[in-house]
Amino acid sequence: MQFKPSIMFGLLVSLLISQLPLQTVSAQAPNLAGYSQQSSTAERDWEQKFREIPTTENIRQYNQRLSARPHNVGSPYDKDNAEWILSQFKSWGLDAQIETFDVLFPTPKTRKLELLGPKPYTAKLVEPPVPGDPTSSQQSEQLPTYNAYSVDGDVTAPLVYVNYGIPKDYEQLDRMGISVRGAIVIARYGQSWRGIKPKVAAEHGAVGCIIYSDPRDDGYFEGDVFPQGAYRNSNGVQRGSVLDMPVYAGDPLTPGIGSTPGAKRLALKDVKVFTKIPVMPISYGDAQPFLEQLTGPVAPEGWRGALPFTYHVGPGPVKVHMVVASNWDQKPIYDVIARIPGSQYPDEWVIRGNHHDAWVNGSQDPVSGTSPLMEEARALGELLKQGWKPKRTIIYAAWDGEEPGLLGSTEWAETHADELRQHAVAYINSDANSRGFLFAGGSHSLQTMLNDVARDVPDPERQMSIWQRRRARDITQAATDDEKEKVRDRKYVPVQALGSGSDYTVFLDHLGVASANLGFGGEDGGGIYHSIYDDFYWYTHFDDPQFIYGRALAQVAGNSVMRLADADLIPLDFMAFSDTVKGYADDVEKLATDERNHIVEENKELDEGDQIAASDPTKKYVPPAREAVPPYLNFAPLKNALDALSHSAERYQHAFNQVAQNGGAALAKGSLAAVNAKLIESERALTAVQGLPNRPWFEHQIYAPGFYTGYGVKTLPGIREAIEQKKWQEADREIGVVANTLNNEATIIDSAAEELEKVGK
Amino acid sequence: MQFKPSIMFGLLVSLLISQLPLQTVSAQAPNLAGYSQQSSTAERDWEQKFREIPTTENIRQYNQRLSARPHNVGSPYDKDNAEWILSQFKSWGLDAQIETFDVLFPTPKTRKLELLGPKPYTAKLVEPPVPGDPTSSQQSEQLPTYNAYSVDGDVTAPLVYVNYGIPKDYEQLDRMGISVRGAIVIARYGQSWRGIKPKVAAEHGAVGCIIYSDPRDDGYFEGDVFPQGAYRNSNGVQRGSVLDMPVYAGDPLTPGIGSTPGAKRLALKDVKVFTKIPVMPISYGDAQPFLEQLTGPVAPEGWRGALPFTYHVGPGPVKVHMVVASNWDQKPIYDVIARIPGSQYPDEWVIRGNHHDAWVNGSQDPVSGTSPLMEEARALGELLKQGWKPKRTIIYAAWDGEEPGLLGSTEWAETHADELRQHAVAYINSDANSRGFLFAGGSHSLQTMLNDVARDVPDPERQMSIWQRRRARDITQAATDDEKEKVRDRKYVPVQALGSGSDYTVFLDHLGVASANLGFGGEDGGGIYHSIYDDFYWYTHFDDPQFIYGRALAQVAGNSVMRLADADLIPLDFMAFSDTVKGYADDVEKLATDERNHIVEENKELDEGDQIAASDPTKKYVPPAREAVPPYLNFAPLKNALDALSHSAERYQHAFNQVAQNGGAALAKGSLAAVNAKLIESERALTAVQGLPNRPWFEHQIYAPGFYTGYGVKTLPGIREAIEQKKWQEADREIGVVANTLNNEATIIDSAAEELEKVGK
Repeated sequence: MQFKPSIMFGLLVSLLISQLPLQTVSAQAPNLAGYSQQSSTAERDWEQKFREIPTTENIRQYNQRLSARPHNVGSPYDKDNAEWILSQFKSWGLDAQIETFDVLFPTPKTRKLELLGPKPYTAKLVEPPVPGDPTSSQQSEQLPTYNAYSVDGDVTAPLVYVNYGIPKDYEQLDRMGISVRGAIVIARYGQSWRGIKPKVAAEHGAVGCIIYSDPRDDGYFEGDVFPQGAYRNSNGVQRGSVLDMPVYAGDPLTPGIGSTPGAKRLALKDVKVFTKIPVMPISYGDAQPFLEQLTGPVAPEGWRGALPFTYHVGPGPVKVHMVVASNWDQKPIYDVIARIPGSQYPDEWVIRGNHHDAWVNGSQDPVSGTSPLMEEARALGELLKQGWKPKRTIIYAAWDGEEPGLLGSTEWAETHADELRQHAVAYINSDANSRGFLFAGGSHSLQTMLNDVARDVPDPERQMSIWQRRRARDITQAATDDEKEKVRDRKYVPVQALGSGSDYTVFLDHLGVASANLGFGGEDGGGIYHSIYDDFYWYTHFDDPQFIYGRALAQVAGNSVMRLADADLIPLDFMAFSDTVKGYADDVEKLATDERNHIVEENKELDEGDQIAASDPTKKYVPPAREAVPPYLNFAPLKNALDALSHSAERYQHAFNQVAQNGGAALAKGSLAAVNAKLIESERALTAVQGLPNRPWFEHQIYAPGFYTGYGVKTLPGIREAIEQKKWQEADREIGVVANTLNNEATIIDSAAEELEKVGK
Repeated sequence: MQFKPSIMFGLLVSLLISQLPLQTVSAQAPNLAGYSQQSSTAERDWEQKFREIPTTENIRQYNQRLSARPHNVGSPYDKDNAEWILSQFKSWGLDAQIETFDVLFPTPKTRKLELLGPKPYTAKLVEPPVPGDPTSSQQSEQLPTYNAYSVDGDVTAPLVYVNYGIPKDYEQLDRMGISVRGAIVIARYGQSWRGIKPKVAAEHGAVGCIIYSDPRDDGYFEGDVFPQGAYRNSNGVQRGSVLDMPVYAGDPLTPGIGSTPGAKRLALKDVKVFTKIPVMPISYGDAQPFLEQLTGPVAPEGWRGALPFTYHVGPGPVKVHMVVASNWDQKPIYDVIARIPGSQYPDEWVIRGNHHDAWVNGSQDPVSGTSPLMEEARALGELLKQGWKPKRTIIYAAWDGEEPGLLGSTEWAETHADELRQHAVAYINSDANSRGFLFAGGSHSLQTMLNDVARDVPDPERQMSIWQRRRARDITQAATDDEKEKVRDRKYVPVQALGSGSDYTVFLDHLGVASANLGFGGEDGGGIYHSIYDDFYWYTHFDDPQFIYGRALAQVAGNSVMRLADADLIPLDFMAFSDTVKGYADDVEKLATDERNHIVEENKELDEGDQIAASDPTKKYVPPAREAVPPYLNFAPLKNALDALSHSAERYQHAFNQVAQNGGAALAKGSLAAVNAKLIESERALTAVQGLPNRPWFEHQIYAPGFYTGYGVKTLPGIREAIEQKKWQEADREIGVVANTLNNEATIIDSAAEELEKVGK
């Protein structure tokens, strides 16, 4: 245990700070949004009671138990954990059960990586135990290092270093006149979700893909390496899935439907989301002999990592032999689902989830999030015993199979899709949790609610709310004094748009359920992600050793669930949504203009011969191809729709303000069922059944993971990606799709406002 | 020889390209600025003849001869080189002589650097010979690795890593709560002139300073290391002077006066420009054991170099013992001066110089500049034989003693200060030269002349002028499409303001002689600077192996000298000067505003407690001290002076345009002596006799090397540095000084315009 208390200015970090009344929890506090005076007072009281229940000791014990052995999908301890979570849920008085699905989960059969020459080397592909770290030696249960859903393959080819292996890296290779056709590429982890790297490599004709962890990104460049420090040592390997998840998430054999026993499954040969080429992850210890022997051009500055030699791009003279083969088996996954029925609106569901499966021991990923979720469930059980009656149904889920492809959440949500479309109010997700600042992503209709809740949760390290502390961080980290002023003037901490990378994906992107993802971070840092070293020893030495942010996560996520479940009127904020989407629309219009100007400029340079003139004749340089200047796009439909959205949001806000008058008397007496029903529809209206171009599973029109980023979000994805990919006709078409979507949204908000106006009368 | 010809699009690089007529050299070309039609035609003819004379083979031979042995100040081969240059000058028919000065030049007596523990290590402090590189083995003549003018000292202390050791690095140390008081600091080379590092370290209480070359900056991170590549290997050390040259340049014993035999010399104890603490340069091979064993906070991201471990700041547990002692002897230096008397204005001098001394063999620094200068001298000798008669006197100088402290140029110019103030038209400098693009710095009154000359000089690698190629580079390298457009719209390539770092310093900064510094670069790169590996083998493998840019330097510098020496009217452009200074004034006003806003913002953060709130309680963080909000400064006198300057520049430009009409008939018949006399005064008027605050030797009020940058320029230095150092009263005072200076300048330009108007009538 190396937690060091604050040594600054004698400030003592009170671990009992949660018992101090916060300024916002005062008698003069205004009613909570969507609550009458009476229900607001009661809610504040219940939420305060809730926050006092979770203990860091419990969270520590859950973590130690859940991460005690490797518990990947298909392992004995994965099932054991699910059953233990179930028993805990039940012991706290919750109605819980396990839902099982059968999913395709390949495991390593053959893994071989040889450097044939000049100086031969055979990659070790092993993570050795570390003295002092007890679970690192559980070798018989550890899943070997591999990338799940890589196709099988046996290839021998020259090697090319492609930096992060994202599309713009290949543009730079083009400028250098270097092709990866017929080559094995070696890419470093980072800058994209890992599945993008083999996908883009294959698009460019590569026959194999090695992904390694450069010490620049999460190794010794960043900090001392494990076990002396938190960062990746030379043997650490990042396992991980390389399914083409931007096409669809979940079991690759059952796109769009639950992988229940009778479900129709694709044949392996018909699955489109496997990689096209074999891919394998390695440590930087294994990568060094390969990279060190490459010749060819010196890698561009931004491509160079922290290994102690000059990075070259290749190809030549390095020749590589790579063999990947998997056991392509189906495995059971175990979602643990607990349900608290709503007292007033049982058909309105607030869902909360975190996965429980890991690549190995996963004390951080996901157990640091699973454990607080369990403690929330225990606390809610306590509240129920004390007489708390949530208006809405609450569902707590510990998902299995997140790591391979968001399998547990996706199969469950696909199985229950019709019910969810009808009943789901919101989904609150968490995953690996760390020490530091609250990071909240999600639907912008939830932005105000999330800010409100965060204002009530105490920060465990500083005497202020987690909201105030996050705001202080945003001020100090803003790049310029002007930006600092803007942050200071803002009344809220912006919620970040969600891409993918955790279990909210099916809820938000596929079903259109308003979603949020909560977690703490910014004071952690490390390089054990998806390695055997992500374990209890590491977590309790280097991440949140006292689990104080585990408790804070339980408090903020639990309070968010309660705030949504107990409200008279579901607290959605369409002004926040409308303003945010307006910003996205400005972004994509600017993107189109910039793209156009850039092509015009680049063509001028080609006409003048500037690029060739400025290049060094002793180095190969290939200027970009001339491109046709793009047409101007018609953004008018989008702007008109934004106007409609803005008007409806204002109308709803006006009605919302009306019913909040006089202590929210109208909320206390009126019938809100009709309004709430419309509110539940509002996020659903942001989907379009045809989905995004070439990926119909992704139905949300405002947020999606990028087709070429994997995790990273693309807002207004249909329009934005069409522009990025220079598909101008598609961009024009997608402007229409998004405009229709926003018009539909405006209609729903208008009808919610109309219902709310009746309540206010 | 590894020069690779262009492989792009079959373009053949013609080594004979200088014989091709360039577009600008056509019958329809307008008159050269400052020339009548007749004199312009003659001048174009002579300049063309001049450009055809220099050969790459001669430049190669001079280089090989001059760099054949180590030739630092005080060495036998330094004198030998001077005498050989003299004999060459004479053999080309020039009136040449050697001027000798006696200067203080300390050489190493004791150098010791020990890591006492935890794991002891004794620094090697040697650069071994490299197989295949013949001159690297001349060990008996090589000056050992050291920093000249370090004080003697023997210190034992803990070590602190201070990044580049510049003022803002110490601000970051303050935030980490780390003091260097009583410690030895280790700083990496870069981001400032080296002498700044011990100066700032001593200001913060350090007792010793180690400077090392991190492989991030000029070693394997940047490219393959010598002898496989151009970059610094683990043994390479950067020697160099650490005199506090921002206070004054030249012999430290004779500030402001020539170090002639009878000159009054300071006692060593009274010299203020030695370092305050011992300082020593080392290789990264020697630095690694020291840095690797440091503990304490992990270095901030921008501080981390490319050695393969986690950079820590210290202190602890590393303990260092360091001994530095020098032989504090006087040595003779040998300036070789050739003079071509002017036919019409013998009392108007155009001066051209490059140093000949090196730290070791110095094939690049300075011989790659010295050799073209010699070839220019030969070519001018040829032209004289062909009947060319320059109107003005031309002086060619091969300076000695530049490396230790700009000794040769400074002592010569201080000795001849009165004559130079009266007669000097301009000084054209060069130094180490490389392959690539023309970089021109200097007085902005010379900007148009330098652009004009560069338009006439062919680029040896591409079929265009060096001006066109530089412009193509500026377009392609501009960061944004908007900036690219701005570069494209510009009719000139801006001349960069000069700081220090070569022999123009005394001319420009001390005497107020309009100066320019010319050189090629951007296609070189390497890490042999001031090491034994800067030699003929390295230069002919990795820099300008065919000396084609050596010839281009001779062409552009020689043509610049001729253009100035032959003009009817000295071609100065005060519009370019006025516009540029207006930009500097905008900069300093913005700097004051930004500085004010920044203090206001930082105080708000202190009031709110944001910095503490945002900090990690497990890491020490000390917030900045509260600062008084600065007063608003009165920029009105500066703006009024800029108006006056702008009006006078316009008036002069109008008169200039008038006399250029009708083929410049007025120039051909009128007497221009009075105008030229005023023009010569114009740069002198930019000095103030009291100099800059606390450094009276630096008299120029527009350009100076920064007190805390050493080489890097500070424009309007009196104002800018006062603001940077938060001396608000001084800033207000310096605004007055600069305003007076610019008003004086406006008066001179007005009187030049008045004289020119008479000619035009």
